[in-house]
This record gives sequence, structure tokens and C-alpha cells, in this order.
Amino acid sequence: MKTLSENRAFGGVQGVYSHRSSACACDMTFGLFLPAQAEDGPVPLLWFLSGLTCTHENAMVKAGAQRWAAEAGIALVFPDTSPRGEGVANDPDFALGQGAGFYVNATQAPWSPHFRMWDYVTDELPRLLFNAFPLAEDVQGITGHSMGGHGALTIAMSFPGRFRSVSAFAPICNPVASDWGRLQFSAYLGNDETTWVAHDATLLTKKRGFDGPMLVDQGTADQFLDKLRPEALAEAMAAARQGGTFRMQKGYDHSYFFVSTFMEDHVSFHAEAFMA
Amino acid sequence: MKTLSENRAFGGVQGVYSHRSSACACDMTFGLFLPAQAEDGPVPLLWFLSGLTCTHENAMVKAGAQRWAAEAGIALVFPDTSPRGEGVANDPDFALGQGAGFYVNATQAPWSPHFRMWDYVTDELPRLLFNAFPLAEDVQGITGHSMGGHGALTIAMSFPGRFRSVSAFAPICNPVASDWGRLQFSAYLGNDETTWVAHDATLLTKKRGFDGPMLVDQGTADQFLDKLRPEALAEAMAAARQGGTFRMQKGYDHSYFFVSTFMEDHVSFHAEAFMA
Repeated sequence: MKTLSENRAFGGVQGVYSHRSSACACDMTFGLFLPAQAEDGPVPLLWFLSGLTCTHENAMVKAGAQRWAAEAGIALVFPDTSPRGEGVANDPDFALGQGAGFYVNATQAPWSPHFRMWDYVTDELPRLLFNAFPLAEDVQGITGHSMGGHGALTIAMSFPGRFRSVSAFAPICNPVASDWGRLQFSAYLGNDETTWVAHDATLLTKKRGFDGPMLVDQGTADQFLDKLRPEALAEAMAAARQGGTFRMQKGYDHSYFFVSTFMEDHVSFHAEAFMA
Repeated sequence: MKTLSENRAFGGVQGVYSHRSSACACDMTFGLFLPAQAEDGPVPLLWFLSGLTCTHENAMVKAGAQRWAAEAGIALVFPDTSPRGEGVANDPDFALGQGAGFYVNATQAPWSPHFRMWDYVTDELPRLLFNAFPLAEDVQGITGHSMGGHGALTIAMSFPGRFRSVSAFAPICNPVASDWGRLQFSAYLGNDETTWVAHDATLLTKKRGFDGPMLVDQGTADQFLDKLRPEALAEAMAAARQGGTFRMQKGYDHSYFFVSTFMEDHVSFHAEAFMA
């Protein structure tokens, strides 16, 4: 693992590291914020999965999460959103290929050799993190924005017991019924739609849900509401009696101004779950 | 004036606007955050002047100021750092030309037709802002980072009574004795160094100071300490009996991680001065 940068921030350290990924068969970069409390022993870990076009950097510099994580003594990890580099397949559409891994393991050409973000985020990166940094593996939460909200919800529901809490900012809620989902699942997973259902937060909520607190924020002025389909997840949460809070935030759009506005609430939400 | 974007943020609105500038003889862009309180009447205004290479956008998306301004009911303005566009002079050195206006009125070719950031920030932009937005002209403060800290300090000291409070993050403290200063003053103002002294915070502190509270934060791990010369300003503040606080922050560097870490303190500092 290589240290690309370390900056003191809010009494802790915001680091950026790269490493060879066997899951993605390329070098991968991630950001990790360690609060001051990590000097004294393992601290809880909150995952932040980012959206389309993002790298590890966007949320790290724009979401304002470190302030609240520092106060609560929580580490933050910001993974990249896809494999990258020469020899890694790509597409001119910003919603496919590099920057758009969609947190699945691709089974189709030309994506399958590198686009294994599900394995990367759920297996390889956690093992690396818990080996290398003072992080409490038994105290984890997960959140994300847009495509990353989709990732957070589907991963949380697929690993019962791993995460104490899950939240999402404007997640892609129902990708099997959206242009943000059908395009990518067709490309990465192929045309057999039965392989898609494991990656749809709405369907997973109906099927098994999440055993812990769940928080979703969605702006009412979001320019991508038709692609996100919040109504599908809200309905599923209520119908499946999934414990949780779904908030429609009046006037907010899809930007990081929306994410940063509600970041304090989300970090507090996870911090409370970590102490329960 | 053209609205380039408006995003709801922290209960208020983060806007980006452009307008024809007569001071700079080009179109200029700025960011303005209006807190929710501005819906009910004029609110105080805190200026944030940015550093080398920045546009209006860097601090707007990375400094995390809106959270604290929203709480205190304060507006934030983020001006650009130089004139820009075709026909505007530039230089391959990032520290000169576009992105490096240094908050002076250039008198020398090729800079003098456009590089009039002193007039822009102290005269043209304030008149535009107070005409167009619900801002309380009698309740202003000013801050900035690096080159913008230099701008904030020199402007505050040059307009007695205009600003209630001044602060700076890692300011260029003594440009007449620094590579970040001599290069730009030679280019913009010419070789007569008597014209430079009006733009040096250390010299101005010794000459007349600032009649109000002053706060300066400087990281001890800043990679540009030799160019910023904090020791010159710290000495001048003490020698001139300038009221204020100069803090050396252990382990922090020159990045926005440093700025965002101490932003809460700076906004609170100005908010307190606004209520005095």
C-alpha cells in the first residue's frame, strides 16, 4: 500500500492511499479519515460510497463529513467508484464504465476482467483496512450518495450483522426499473434479469430488509428523481414494515450542497447506532 | 447579472452569478451564500477571499463555511481571484496572472487593462451586492486564505470602519519580503517599492493596524511557511499592540483540510463581532 497524501484535519488525519487490487486487477485508490481517537485504539468505521463520475476524492473534499466524524470518534472510508487505468474498459456514457462501477461484479465482456466492485468493497478493501489501520471491525456503518446510496443499501442488506446502521443520500432506489440500472445491469450482468434482483434496494427491502436503523434523505428538487425512484423504496419500506426514516427534503437538489447539508444528521445517526 | 446556478444548502441558497465588471473590463463570476434569515431582511456579510490558482468555486465547495454561516444567519461572498477570459493577460507561472490577482490595481503592462482586483473587491462588487441582495452594508467582516488572507488583512486595514472584524487562514503576511509578493508587485505595480507598502499586512499593522478584532490561523506543517512569513505579522501585531489572536496550529498544512478545520472558529469569531 502506498501513501499518496496525509493531511491533518479536524484533529485527525485525512489520508489517501493506493494499493494493488486483486478483485479489480488494477491499482485502486481510497481516502481514509482517522479521527484523533484512533491514536488510542480501534475506532468505528463509516463507509461512504460515492456516485456516478466520482472518484475517492469528491466526498472527501466536499461532503464535510470529517467535522462530525472527528467529534464522534468515527473513521470514514471513501472508496473509488470503479476500476481505472490503461487496459480497463470504458464507455463514452458517463453512466457506464470508469466512474460507474455500480457496486456489482461484472460477468460480461468487456467488463468482467476488472469491474468487480462488489468484491472490492465487501471483501478485499475491508480486509486491507482492518489489517492496516486501527478500526473496529465489529462497529461499522455504511452510507452513500446516488449510485453510492444504491451500493450502501444493497450491501447492508446482503451482509446481515456486518453493519449496525445504513443510510443514503438520494440513492438509486430501484435500478431494475430505471435507466440508471437497466443500462448498467445489462452491460455488467447480462440480459438475464434474475441476476439483477440482488442489486436492487427496493426488491431487497421487500425480500429481507435491514436489521437495524435505516435513514434515507432525498431532495424534492432533485433533477434525477425519475431515475432515482424514491417512491419505490419509500413504498417498500412501509409495505415491508422496515424500520427506518425516509425524509423528502424540500427544495434540495442532487448536489453535494444537499449531501453536506444533511451530513451532520447522517453521521450522528450512525454514531448513535454505534453506541447502542 | 446572470444566475449561473442556485442550490439549496443548509436551509439557504448557494448561488453563483456572473456580471460584466467595469473594474476588470471582463465578465466576473462570484459565489454568494444567503442563509434562510435573508428571506426576512438584510443579513451580515462575510467576505472570503481565495488564494492562488483558485476561482470563486474552491472555498465555496471545500471550506465548509455554509454550515456555520447558516447557523449564525450570515451571508458569504466568494469572489474570483483575478480577471479571466480571452484577451486577459496571463503567465505560465501559477503565481502570476489569471488566478493570481493579488488584490491590487495593476499599473504596468500587460496587466493594467484588466488586473484591478482592488477596485473590484473594494468598490464594484460591494456596490453590486448591496444593490441586488438583502445584505446589511453596516455589518461586514472579511477573511481569506493564503493570497486571500493577504487581501483580507490589507483591505480591512485600508478601509477603517467598513469591517467589524478581520481574520485570515495562512495569509501571505509580508509580501514585500517574499517570493509571493515581490514577483507579483514587480509585475503589477512596477519596481518603485514605495507603491508596494500599501499592500503588505505586516507593514500596515505597524503603520495603522485594524480597529476591531483580528484572528489569524497558521499551520505549523504548512509547506509554504517561507513564503507566508507568519513570524513577521506575529511580531508586528505584538510590537504595534494590535488587538487580536495569532494561532499556530500544530501539524496542519496549507490545504483546505486546514481551512475547513478552523472555519467554525472563524465564522463564530465574525458572528460575535457582528453582534457586539
